[in-house]
Amino acid sequence: MISPTETETAFDPNADRLREECGVFGIYGHADAAALTALGLHALQHRGQEAAGIVSFDGTRFHSERRLGLVGDAFSEASVIDKLKGKQAIGHVRYSTTGETILRNVQPLFAELHGGGFALAHNGNLTNGLTLRRNLVRDGAIYQSTSDTEVLLHLVARSRKQNFVDRFVEGIRQIEGAYAFVGMTNKKLIGARDPLGIRPLVLGELDGCPILTSETCALDIIGAKFIREVENGEVLIVSESGIESHKPFPPIAERPCIFEYIYFARPDSIVKGRSIYERRKAMGAVLAQESPANADVVVPVPDSGVPAALGYAQASGIPFELGIIRNHYVGRTFIEPTQKVRELGVKLKHSANRSVVEGKSIVLVDDSIVRGTTSFKIVKMMREAGAREVHFRISSPPITHPDYYGIDTPDREKLLAATHSLEEMRQFVGADSLAFISVDGLYRAMGHERRDPLRPQFTDHCFTGDYPTSLTDVIGESAKQQISLLAEAG
Amino acid sequence: MISPTETETAFDPNADRLREECGVFGIYGHADAAALTALGLHALQHRGQEAAGIVSFDGTRFHSERRLGLVGDAFSEASVIDKLKGKQAIGHVRYSTTGETILRNVQPLFAELHGGGFALAHNGNLTNGLTLRRNLVRDGAIYQSTSDTEVLLHLVARSRKQNFVDRFVEGIRQIEGAYAFVGMTNKKLIGARDPLGIRPLVLGELDGCPILTSETCALDIIGAKFIREVENGEVLIVSESGIESHKPFPPIAERPCIFEYIYFARPDSIVKGRSIYERRKAMGAVLAQESPANADVVVPVPDSGVPAALGYAQASGIPFELGIIRNHYVGRTFIEPTQKVRELGVKLKHSANRSVVEGKSIVLVDDSIVRGTTSFKIVKMMREAGAREVHFRISSPPITHPDYYGIDTPDREKLLAATHSLEEMRQFVGADSLAFISVDGLYRAMGHERRDPLRPQFTDHCFTGDYPTSLTDVIGESAKQQISLLAEAG
Amino acid sequence: MISPTETETAFDPNADRLREECGVFGIYGHADAAALTALGLHALQHRGQEAAGIVSFDGTRFHSERRLGLVGDAFSEASVIDKLKGKQAIGHVRYSTTGETILRNVQPLFAELHGGGFALAHNGNLTNGLTLRRNLVRDGAIYQSTSDTEVLLHLVARSRKQNFVDRFVEGIRQIEGAYAFVGMTNKKLIGARDPLGIRPLVLGELDGCPILTSETCALDIIGAKFIREVENGEVLIVSESGIESHKPFPPIAERPCIFEYIYFARPDSIVKGRSIYERRKAMGAVLAQESPANADVVVPVPDSGVPAALGYAQASGIPFELGIIRNHYVGRTFIEPTQKVRELGVKLKHSANRSVVEGKSIVLVDDSIVRGTTSFKIVKMMREAGAREVHFRISSPPITHPDYYGIDTPDREKLLAATHSLEEMRQFVGADSLAFISVDGLYRAMGHERRDPLRPQFTDHCFTGDYPTSLTDVIGESAKQQISLLAEAG
Amino acid sequence: MISPTETETAFDPNADRLREECGVFGIYGHADAAALTALGLHALQHRGQEAAGIVSFDGTRFHSERRLGLVGDAFSEASVIDKLKGKQAIGHVRYSTTGETILRNVQPLFAELHGGGFALAHNGNLTNGLTLRRNLVRDGAIYQSTSDTEVLLHLVARSRKQNFVDRFVEGIRQIEGAYAFVGMTNKKLIGARDPLGIRPLVLGELDGCPILTSETCALDIIGAKFIREVENGEVLIVSESGIESHKPFPPIAERPCIFEYIYFARPDSIVKGRSIYERRKAMGAVLAQESPANADVVVPVPDSGVPAALGYAQASGIPFELGIIRNHYVGRTFIEPTQKVRELGVKLKHSANRSVVEGKSIVLVDDSIVRGTTSFKIVKMMREAGAREVHFRISSPPITHPDYYGIDTPDREKLLAATHSLEEMRQFVGADSLAFISVDGLYRAMGHERRDPLRPQFTDHCFTGDYPTSLTDVIGESAKQQISLLAEAG
Repeated sequence: MISPTETETAFDPNADRLREECGVFGIYGHADAAALTALGLHALQHRGQEAAGIVSFDGTRFHSERRLGLVGDAFSEASVIDKLKGKQAIGHVRYSTTGETILRNVQPLFAELHGGGFALAHNGNLTNGLTLRRNLVRDGAIYQSTSDTEVLLHLVARSRKQNFVDRFVEGIRQIEGAYAFVGMTNKKLIGARDPLGIRPLVLGELDGCPILTSETCALDIIGAKFIREVENGEVLIVSESGIESHKPFPPIAERPCIFEYIYFARPDSIVKGRSIYERRKAMGAVLAQESPANADVVVPVPDSGVPAALGYAQASGIPFELGIIRNHYVGRTFIEPTQKVRELGVKLKHSANRSVVEGKSIVLVDDSIVRGTTSFKIVKMMREAGAREVHFRISSPPITHPDYYGIDTPDREKLLAATHSLEEMRQFVGADSLAFISVDGLYRAMGHERRDPLRPQFTDHCFTGDYPTSLTDVIGESAKQQISLLAEAG
Repeated sequence: MISPTETETAFDPNADRLREECGVFGIYGHADAAALTALGLHALQHRGQEAAGIVSFDGTRFHSERRLGLVGDAFSEASVIDKLKGKQAIGHVRYSTTGETILRNVQPLFAELHGGGFALAHNGNLTNGLTLRRNLVRDGAIYQSTSDTEVLLHLVARSRKQNFVDRFVEGIRQIEGAYAFVGMTNKKLIGARDPLGIRPLVLGELDGCPILTSETCALDIIGAKFIREVENGEVLIVSESGIESHKPFPPIAERPCIFEYIYFARPDSIVKGRSIYERRKAMGAVLAQESPANADVVVPVPDSGVPAALGYAQASGIPFELGIIRNHYVGRTFIEPTQKVRELGVKLKHSANRSVVEGKSIVLVDDSIVRGTTSFKIVKMMREAGAREVHFRISSPPITHPDYYGIDTPDREKLLAATHSLEEMRQFVGADSLAFISVDGLYRAMGHERRDPLRPQFTDHCFTGDYPTSLTDVIGESAKQQISLLAEAG
Repeated sequence: MISPTETETAFDPNADRLREECGVFGIYGHADAAALTALGLHALQHRGQEAAGIVSFDGTRFHSERRLGLVGDAFSEASVIDKLKGKQAIGHVRYSTTGETILRNVQPLFAELHGGGFALAHNGNLTNGLTLRRNLVRDGAIYQSTSDTEVLLHLVARSRKQNFVDRFVEGIRQIEGAYAFVGMTNKKLIGARDPLGIRPLVLGELDGCPILTSETCALDIIGAKFIREVENGEVLIVSESGIESHKPFPPIAERPCIFEYIYFARPDSIVKGRSIYERRKAMGAVLAQESPANADVVVPVPDSGVPAALGYAQASGIPFELGIIRNHYVGRTFIEPTQKVRELGVKLKHSANRSVVEGKSIVLVDDSIVRGTTSFKIVKMMREAGAREVHFRISSPPITHPDYYGIDTPDREKLLAATHSLEEMRQFVGADSLAFISVDGLYRAMGHERRDPLRPQFTDHCFTGDYPTSLTDVIGESAKQQISLLAEAG
Repeated sequence: MISPTETETAFDPNADRLREECGVFGIYGHADAAALTALGLHALQHRGQEAAGIVSFDGTRFHSERRLGLVGDAFSEASVIDKLKGKQAIGHVRYSTTGETILRNVQPLFAELHGGGFALAHNGNLTNGLTLRRNLVRDGAIYQSTSDTEVLLHLVARSRKQNFVDRFVEGIRQIEGAYAFVGMTNKKLIGARDPLGIRPLVLGELDGCPILTSETCALDIIGAKFIREVENGEVLIVSESGIESHKPFPPIAERPCIFEYIYFARPDSIVKGRSIYERRKAMGAVLAQESPANADVVVPVPDSGVPAALGYAQASGIPFELGIIRNHYVGRTFIEPTQKVRELGVKLKHSANRSVVEGKSIVLVDDSIVRGTTSFKIVKMMREAGAREVHFRISSPPITHPDYYGIDTPDREKLLAATHSLEEMRQFVGADSLAFISVDGLYRAMGHERRDPLRPQFTDHCFTGDYPTSLTDVIGESAKQQISLLAEAG
C-alpha cells in the first residue's frame, strides 16, 4: 500500500473531486432570451466552471458567444448580451479541466444544415461516440471539435428525412449513453433525455415562455415556474404551436444517476418533489444510524459535506460545528511557486478552525472519497489542529468503478476504494474509524426500502459496477485513443 | 418612511456590505519571501478583493508587482513570483469598490528616499491625511497616488533625522487615525500600530524568520507560529540584529475596533487567545437570551451570519438549517442586462432553500444591517419561499454612525439605523420581529461584564458615536473634497 | 456626375485600394520548417495583413496557430514557433478588410479525414464555391468557416478514391476559378495551380528541401534557391520519394493575372525571368511615350507608384522628386474622433512635400484608379501645396470590371472608370490632364508586341471584361447572398 | 580590428540606428483639443514609436491617457479621445527601446502642485538631471519616474515664487542641456526652448488657437498655419489674454542640433524656411562633388537615404534606382526563432532588388554609420545580389562622439568612427570605396559658407566633440549609474 503523496493535488484545490460535464438551459419566445439564459447558466455554475456559451436566434440569423471562464465574467456586460439578439436562446456551462480546454469545444455547438441552422448543448456522455465518429469520418464528415456532442450534429445533417424532428430522432436513435440535450433551430427549441434519464432535464415556464434546463435552481433565479421533469426517453419540441412530446424509444423504467443527489445538484434544487438538501440530510441521518461514533462534535468538510453533516448531527444529537473554514477566493488553480513552499503542504482551500477541534473527538463528514489524497490531508489537518480522535463518515458508498456518462472520474486504479479494503482505506486517510453509507442505506435515504437488484431505481454503477447501457467505445477500442490529430498550439 | 428600492443594489451583490480597506503581510529573511507573502495575502483575501501588491528586496534592488484582482489571479504564476526576488517582502490586499479603482493607488507604495528605497503597506485610515497632504503639497511635495498612505512616505522623506527609525517615528507622530503599517527598507522590516491599536497586527515566525501580518490565519496557511500581537502604539523594527520594540507614544489603553470581531476577521483567526468563531457564536447565544423567538428553525444569512446563527440555535435549542443557499461564483459585479430582467428582482448571490423554510416560523440571523436594502430582499425571499413568520436577529447593535478608520461605510443618512426607529426598521425590512444585540450584550459576548463607559474596551463608534481620535479632516473641511485634479482616463 | 465625398474613405487609409486575398508558403523536410514559414510569410506580408496562420506536422500530430494581425506580431516569439513542431509546415497570410474578419476563416484550414489530417492554404477565389457549398450542405456536410477554400476540404473528404492524390485531383476537378493551393498531409506537401495559372506559385529549394510559395521574394528572405514556376494546371506532390508532377487538366495556354505585375507582387520578385520592378518601370516608360506632359517634376504616389514614376522620369527626362511623403506608421484604421476633425480632411497616410511642388507643373504617377476618391484627394493636396499644373498619369488601363479571382474590388457601380468617361474622370479627380496606359501599351511593357485578342497572354478582365472562366456563382445566384446564418457575436 | 558580427543586431531591425527621445504637441482653446493632439502626434510618430500620451484639461479636471505603442493604436478609438475632455491638451511621443520601457516614464508627466495641476512633455535631455535629482531626493522629494523630465516638476513645485511663470522660469534656470518643453496648467499652455535651441519647437495656429509642436509636419496634418519658430531661450506663455514671450536667459546665438536636418525631422518639415528634403538633397549633391564615383547606378538605403541619394544622382548624372526594397511591415522586433535561422543572415527589413544591382557598379547612399553592423550587412547583400563594385557614400560626417541631448547613441567605444580610421571602416563594411561628407560640406549644404569654428552655427558634437553645454552628470559621476532602486517586475 503506497502512502499518499502530498504533491500531486497540492495546489489544484479541486483535483480530487468528481466533476460533471455540464449544465444546459434554453428558452423560447422571450424578449430577454439571452439575458435570462445568462442568469440561468449562472445558477447552474456549480455544474461547470470551465467555459460558458450562448447561442440565440433573432428570426433571421443566429448569434453565438462562447468563452472560457465563469458565466459572470463572460456574460455580465450588457454589450455581450445585446449582441445575442432574439427571442430564442440556448446556453451551456462546462466543467473545469486543466490543459485540454480549447475554445472549439465550448458549447453550444452550431452547424448550418440544409434547411437552416442548428445549435446544440449537451449534458452527459455518449458511450458510442468515438465509434460513430470514426464511421462518420470514413464517410467524409469533417469535425470542428473533439466533443462527442458533435456526432449528433453530423447524424442530423446526414439524415435524409424531410422533417427536422424526424432527422433529430433518427440521430438520437443511433447514439448510446447519457444525455440531456437542449437544441435550437430557427423555429424550434428541442429538449431530449436519454432512455434511462441518466442526466436531468426539467421543463419550466416564465411569462408563458417554455424553458428547458438541468435543475430547478435555474428556474428559481429568474422567477420561472417549474412545470415537470422531462421524462426519460422523451423528446420535447417547443414551437409556435406549443409543446409536443415525442417518445421515440420503447418504454422503460428510468434510472437517473444517483450522483446528482449525492454531489452534483445544488441543495435547493427539487427532484421528484423533494429538495436535494433534504436527501443529503437523510443520507447523513442514515449514516449516523449505520455508523455511529462516540464524539464531541460533528464537523463537515465544506461546502459539499455540510447537509449530510447536519443530518448526522441532528440524528446523533452531537453538536454541529464549523471545524473547517473554506476559503472561497480559491480559483481554478494556484500554482505553487517553489519547491520549498510545496513542502509546507499549505492548504489553500481549507483551514482548520482550531478552537472547535482542539482536544475533541470529531465526526468528520464528507460526501465521497475519490483518490483519497484530499481526505488524507483533511484528516491530517484536523489532527494538527489538535483533534483527539477523527471518525470519518462518508455519505456515499465506496467508489469502485469509473463513470462513462459525463462524470470525470479517474481511471479505476486511481480510485482508492477500487484497490483498498475498508481497513486499508482507514489507514490511508489516517482516521481512527472510517465508514461509508451502505448502498441500501443510500436508497433508504432516497425514500426506497432498498435497492431493487433486478430493476435498480437509480444508476449507481460507480458503487456497483452495474452499467446501465452498453459501453461500445470502452469495449471496442480504447477510449483513451487520441481523438484528434491536431494539437492545439494556442 | 421611504420604501426600499429594488434597483439600487440589485446586481452588485456586495453593495450593501461593510468593507475594510486592507490586509498586510511582511516577512524578513526567508528564501521564499515573495511566495510566502502571496500565500499570506491569499489567506487575507477576505479583507480586500480589489487589488493586491507585493514589493520585495533582493539585497540590491526592489521589485514591485501591483495588480487589480484577486491574489490567486495576480500571483499564481511562478513567473510573477520569480521576478519578486529577495529574502524580504511585504504585501497588501485592498478592498473592492466600483469606479475609483486605479492602479497608482494599489499598495505597497514605494519611494526612493535619500538613503534608499522604502515600501509601505497600510491597513486603516488617517483622520488628518487630507490636512497633511495639503500642507505637504504647499511645501512642494508631488503625490503619485490619492491614497492617504502616501502622506507617511513624504513625512519620512522630509524628516531631517539621520536614522531611519527616527525618521519613521517622526512621521507617525504627525498622523492621526487608525493604522497597521508594514514597511520595508533595504535593511529593515517595520511594523507599526496606532496608539489605540484600532487595526490589528500580529507577529509570527517561520523557520526563524519574523512575519508581520493582519491576522493569524495568514500565519496558519504557511505553517508559521504565532508569537504575539503587536501592541497598540508599538513600532517593531526587524533587522539582521533581531527585533526591536519602540514605544514612541505615551502609554494608553488599547481600543481595538469591535467590527473586526463582528464581521471582518476570518472565523479561524485568533485574537486575544480566543477564536473569532467562538466570539461570534457567543454573540448569537447572547442574542438568543436577549431576544428569543418562538420559531421552528434558525436560518443564517450565509456566510457571515453562520457562526452567530449556530450560537443562537445551540443556545435556544431551535434546529439550525441552511434555509438560504449562497452562490459562490458571484464575482464583483454582474451587470443586469435589461430593465425587464432587473424587474425580476433576481437573486444572484442568495437563493431560498424552500424545503427548509416553507410553512415554518424562522429565526433569520445576520451580522449587521447597513442600508437595509439587502435585509429587505432576504426577508422577502424567505416569505416568497413560504416562511410563515420571519424573526430577524442581528448579532451587532444598530449602526448609527459612519466609520473613519478604514471601513467603507455609507454616509450617515444612508444608514438605516441612523434615521429609523426599531419599529420603522422592522417595517422597512418586512420582518415579523426584529432585534439587535445590545451594546452591553456585545461586550458580554466578548468576555467583559459590560462596556466600560469611561474607558471602553473597544472602539465601537459605529454603534455609539464615540470616536476615539480627533477627526481633523472631517471637522476642518469636507472629507468629500476632491483629492485629485486628475481624472484617470484609463 | 456626383462630386467626390471626403468622408467615405477619409480615415481608412487603405479603403480605396485593391487588395488580394493571400500569400502561401510550404516547406517539406526542414528542421526549421515553422520558423522558415514564418519568415516566408513575412516576405509575403504585402499580400495580406489581416491574419496569418501556420500548420506544421511533427510525424505524429499536426500543430496549428492562426492569428489576426501581422506575421511579425503573431509569430515573432520563440514560444509560438516552438509549438509548431515538425519538419513540414504550410502557412498563409490574408488581406485586410474591416468588420468581417473572423478567426474561423483564418487559414490554413485543417480537417481530419479518414486516413489522416489535411491542412490547406489558398490564394485565389473559386467562381463556383457557393454553388458547391450548397450542394455539399444538402448532402450533410457541416462547414466550419465561410471561406470558399473549405469546399475543397469537403470534396476531398468525400472522395471515394483510395489514394490521397486521386482524392485531391477529384476535388480540384470540381472547382472553378483561380487558385494556388499549398496543402499538407502527414506524408506530403501539395501544390496546385488552376488551369490558367491565374494566381502565382513557385517552386524553390533550401538545403535540399522543396518549398512552394507565391513569390520569389519569400525564397530570397531565407536564402532559398528558385527552381521554377509551378505551371498552370499543374499539381506538385512532394514526398519522401521526391517531387512528382501531375497534369490532371487538358493542356491550355496560361493566362496569369496581369494585376500581379501592376500592383500585387513585390518589386524585387522575379516572374518569367524579369523583376516586377523592371516591368513597372517599363509601364512608366510606355506611359511617358503614350501620354507625355510638359512638366517640371515627376511625382510618384508612394509607395506603389514609385517604379512607374521612375520609369516615366527616365523616359521623359523630367526630374523625379518625392513630392508626397508617406507616413509608414499608419495602421489598419485611424478612426476620426469628431466631425470637426473629419472636416479638416486630414491626410494620415500622405502629406505634400511643399518645397518640391510649389509653383511647379507636376506629372503625378499612380498605378491605378479604383473609386477615385483617393486620387481626388491627392490631386487636391498637390494643388493646396502650390502645384501649378497636375498631369495625372496611371500605369494601368481604366478598371471597368470587378474581379472574381481573389482581388477585392468594389461593385461595378463604384468603379470610377465603369461609370465615367475619361474627361469626366479628369474632372472628378480635378487634374489638368489625365491619362491611362493603353491595354496594348501594358502588354508592350510586359514584353509582348500587343494583346493577342484571340488568346490573350494574361487575364485582364478588370480592364476588358474578358473573364477567362465561367462565373457559376455570379450567374446562378447572387454572390452577395448570405453565406452564413451565424452572425459572429464576438 | 574585429570583424563585424552577424548576430548582434540581426533581428532588431532598428538596433543600429540613432533614435531621438521625443516629439511634443500642445494646443490651447480648441474644442477638439485631444483629437487634434492625437493627429499631431501621429505626424510626429517618426520621432518616437515606443509610447504616446495626452493630457487634457476641461476647466475643472485634468485627464490623462498614456500608453505603450503607436499613436494610431493608442488613440484611434473615439472612446479614448472622448475621455480626454477639454479645450487644452498636450501630448508626447517617445522613442523605441527594448527592455527599459515602463509606463510610469511615459509622458506627459503630471503633478498636482499647490495652486493646481501641471502637465509636462519634454523633447531633449538634461545634462545635470541626475545631479539635480540627487539633491532633490536629499531634500525629501519623491520621484514617480526615472525620467529626467520629472526634475522640472519638482523644481517648480518647490519654488517659493507666487506666480506660476516665475516658478517655471526659476525651474528652467536650474537645468542644463537640451529641451523643448510643452507644459500645461489649468490656465496656460507653456512652451520653452533651451538657451541654444538645440531641440526644435514651432508655434502654429488653427482656428485662432495657438499650437506648440516639434515640427511643421504636425501643423500640416491638421491644416494649421505655421507662425514662427520658438526662439532659443524663449518661454512662450499662452493664456486667455494671448501669447506672451519671455526671455529669461542672456541673449546668445542659437545652435540647433544638426542631426535634426540629417536624420530626425520629416522630409516635408520646414526649418528656417527650407524643407528638410531640400537640405538632404543638398547634402547628397555636396557629397557627389566631394566624393564622386564611377558607377552605373545610385542606390539609396531606404527610407532615410533616399533624399541624399536623389541629390547625389541629380548632381552626378548617374541614374537613381531602387536597388534595395524595404519591408514596411517590420515591427519593433522580430525574434529569430532558432540558431539555424539566425545563421541564414536573413534580412527582415531590407531585400536586394537584384535586377537593378546585378553586374553593376553602384553608389550606395546612406545618411550615417553608427556601429557599422548594418552597413556591413547591406554592402554584403548588394554583393550577393551581384553588384560588381560598391561605392559607399554617407551624407553625414563620421560619428565619433556620443550625444547627451536626447539622441540615443551607443557608448563611444561602439561608434565605428571613434575607433577606426577611414580605411579601416571601408574594410569593416566591405565597400570598394567609402566616403563621408565633410563637416564644412555639411555646413555648405545647410546654406553656410563653412562651419564657423568660433561660433558654430549648429551643434555638431557627434562629429566634432564640441559639446555646447556643460556636462555636469557625465563629469561628476557616471551617467550610467542606476537611477532607480526599483526594478519593474511587470
